Amino acid sequence: MLTLEQALDAVLTQARPLPACERPLEAAVGSILDEDVAADIDSPPFDKALVDGYAVRTGDLQGPEPRLDIGEVITAGRVPARPLGLGEAAVVMTGAPIPVGCDAVVMHEKTRLEDGHVVIEETAVRPAQNLLARGREMTAGSIVLSRGLLLNPARLGVLAAVGRASVRVVPRPCAAIVPTGDELVEPSEVPGPGQIRNSNAIMLKASALQSGADAETWPIAPDDEKPLRQALEAGLRWDVLMVTGGVSAGQRDLVPDVLASLGVQCIFHKVRLKPGKPLWFGVGPPRSNRGGSLVFGLPGNPVSVLVGFLLFVKPALAALAGKPEAETPETARLARGFRHRGDRPTYHPVKVLRDAANSPATLLLEPLAWSGSADLCTVAQADGFAAFEAGDREYGPGEIVGFLPMR
Amino acid sequence: MLTLEQALDAVLTQARPLPACERPLEAAVGSILDEDVAADIDSPPFDKALVDGYAVRTGDLQGPEPRLDIGEVITAGRVPARPLGLGEAAVVMTGAPIPVGCDAVVMHEKTRLEDGHVVIEETAVRPAQNLLARGREMTAGSIVLSRGLLLNPARLGVLAAVGRASVRVVPRPCAAIVPTGDELVEPSEVPGPGQIRNSNAIMLKASALQSGADAETWPIAPDDEKPLRQALEAGLRWDVLMVTGGVSAGQRDLVPDVLASLGVQCIFHKVRLKPGKPLWFGVGPPRSNRGGSLVFGLPGNPVSVLVGFLLFVKPALAALAGKPEAETPETARLARGFRHRGDRPTYHPVKVLRDAANSPATLLLEPLAWSGSADLCTVAQADGFAAFEAGDREYGPGEIVGFLPMR
Repeated sequence: MLTLEQALDAVLTQARPLPACERPLEAAVGSILDEDVAADIDSPPFDKALVDGYAVRTGDLQGPEPRLDIGEVITAGRVPARPLGLGEAAVVMTGAPIPVGCDAVVMHEKTRLEDGHVVIEETAVRPAQNLLARGREMTAGSIVLSRGLLLNPARLGVLAAVGRASVRVVPRPCAAIVPTGDELVEPSEVPGPGQIRNSNAIMLKASALQSGADAETWPIAPDDEKPLRQALEAGLRWDVLMVTGGVSAGQRDLVPDVLASLGVQCIFHKVRLKPGKPLWFGVGPPRSNRGGSLVFGLPGNPVSVLVGFLLFVKPALAALAGKPEAETPETARLARGFRHRGDRPTYHPVKVLRDAANSPATLLLEPLAWSGSADLCTVAQADGFAAFEAGDREYGPGEIVGFLPMR
Repeated sequence: MLTLEQALDAVLTQARPLPACERPLEAAVGSILDEDVAADIDSPPFDKALVDGYAVRTGDLQGPEPRLDIGEVITAGRVPARPLGLGEAAVVMTGAPIPVGCDAVVMHEKTRLEDGHVVIEETAVRPAQNLLARGREMTAGSIVLSRGLLLNPARLGVLAAVGRASVRVVPRPCAAIVPTGDELVEPSEVPGPGQIRNSNAIMLKASALQSGADAETWPIAPDDEKPLRQALEAGLRWDVLMVTGGVSAGQRDLVPDVLASLGVQCIFHKVRLKPGKPLWFGVGPPRSNRGGSLVFGLPGNPVSVLVGFLLFVKPALAALAGKPEAETPETARLARGFRHRGDRPTYHPVKVLRDAANSPATLLLEPLAWSGSADLCTVAQADGFAAFEAGDREYGPGEIVGFLPMR
């Protein structure tokens, strides 16, 4: 059986960035840029006032409180009609181009009007003060954003500033979610004897959306080959296919066989891990223009589904989106002693007692009383999972353990 | 002029959680729950197998490798037809109800078949092993999720498990973005003399979306009272209205007067802050069923817009969504010495040199060479802003400063 590290390696080997495509800026938030972007024009395209006030020639400012003639008024969007005269100050608004001949802008608040002239109250006005010289931010043809950057709001602003209405990015992956099992009913129904409600589909959809993917859920597929095959076949058109249930060793666990018949190659089945051991992973047949769907068969228990998503599907979605691998896994300290029993590495729900954003050295984990992988209610009170190693062992208070946050 | 803390206080005093409403589960991801949610049925609704294997009576397991008759086969979704016979083992699938009379489940892997009987290879099978007793997770009528919780995937799963297709939450706020200024042209246009492209609208839209709000941008409004008034009047129907430009002391800065004529009450204008000093904040007239729109007039420079969003609009959006106030502001260490000049607290773009998720004590900030609030290009290379206090001062390498991350 694979270790967690081996299994994650096997997943990430298959999860290559999706082929890049052109997207409107609004749809590119959070995506990885897949081109080098050059400025098309100088920015600012003119020497520009950074404040409201008076554009002046510093050479004119001799003695205390120099007094200047008031020249033309230049509002934003207008251009100066003429160069600045000697002993003159032009009225400028923030963002406006300043006239030829001036070399600084004095803030409105540091001047006063007197007999139709402006008196400069500010002493020691420096050349270049309160103005941005043409091309100072970027010059036409220079690269302003490099391939591989994550498109955050500031970078989208730069794209707009260089005239881009669309941009080449690694697209967000899309994920299909197929819940399976004769025992499942939809949340709106009242479960009959032996039935339970489908809580996995909404969990996986919300998880995928929070990971920056698009996601769509299928109706429940019964443990019956024909309808199961139809649902899985449709799901294989997505970049990621998550199937819940049907992957244990049970007699009615049809998912692996049906996937195989659809040309999905099994990469591994079962990981040394609790909860979530029966995890199944494979790759579908190549699609036009891109690789095969990454197929995750998650065991039906809700907590197994959640842990399987966090450990394997989330990193795969990030890799498909072209994002760099996350840093080393997080760790934290136990708030109290804990006796762990079990022959597999175990993810146990914990509450974070102190969330000191600035000194997670003091991040303390309180293990919750938990009934195992079907007990989602306890996990709903948790902030994440503590990772305990295989083997029975008494962990002491303050001991450092792995931490898998739910965020 | 207000300090940053006073201004933020004034904003948060106005930003009350929006009236709760019912939302389908899929639309409630990331929202704050506004009701106590009770279980409608016991969960599990029956004693349930947690693994594939054999449901047994531990009293029957005497001596090494006990051998049992094979009873009925219970797949998930089916119910046992009869109690477990003496010396009998029922075949159960993960999630299936177990028959009356059995008190443990032995994993399939720890058994073997012999002459039509099952041999239990596992020693020391404990009562309750591998099963979840009826109501162990939740009992009908008990509160499983409390008002005020953030709806993450696990909690949405619990809602589905208790039969909820919709849920009462504090809705996500919606934000209108009105860019103003005669100097602006849309990104797809080539700026003429004195013009610049509108980069603020996409920045604010992306920022609002990343903060969990819905957002819509308006076309550019000119510095002309009638169309400006139309745009702002429409924007006041949104929970938050962000206006860029038109709030400095310039002659054509019409926004405050037009807002006043629309019944918007000014709470403050100008904050002791760089960049972004001319920030304007007010509250619109009450709307049917809810309070007035929170109106932020942001100066036109793109970096002022970004910093103003992070410092004021983002916390306001969180408060409208009913989310608890963020913890104390972050801090980090300077990677090198830095000379700060200026009479206002200043947010200066920085790169994070080491992002040690686990020991941000080692988070190091490299201040970037920056031309001020119009220089968005440098900010696009940054990870956030270092906060320097008012006054000229030499900061030493390793000195701790405030950190405003862009994330």
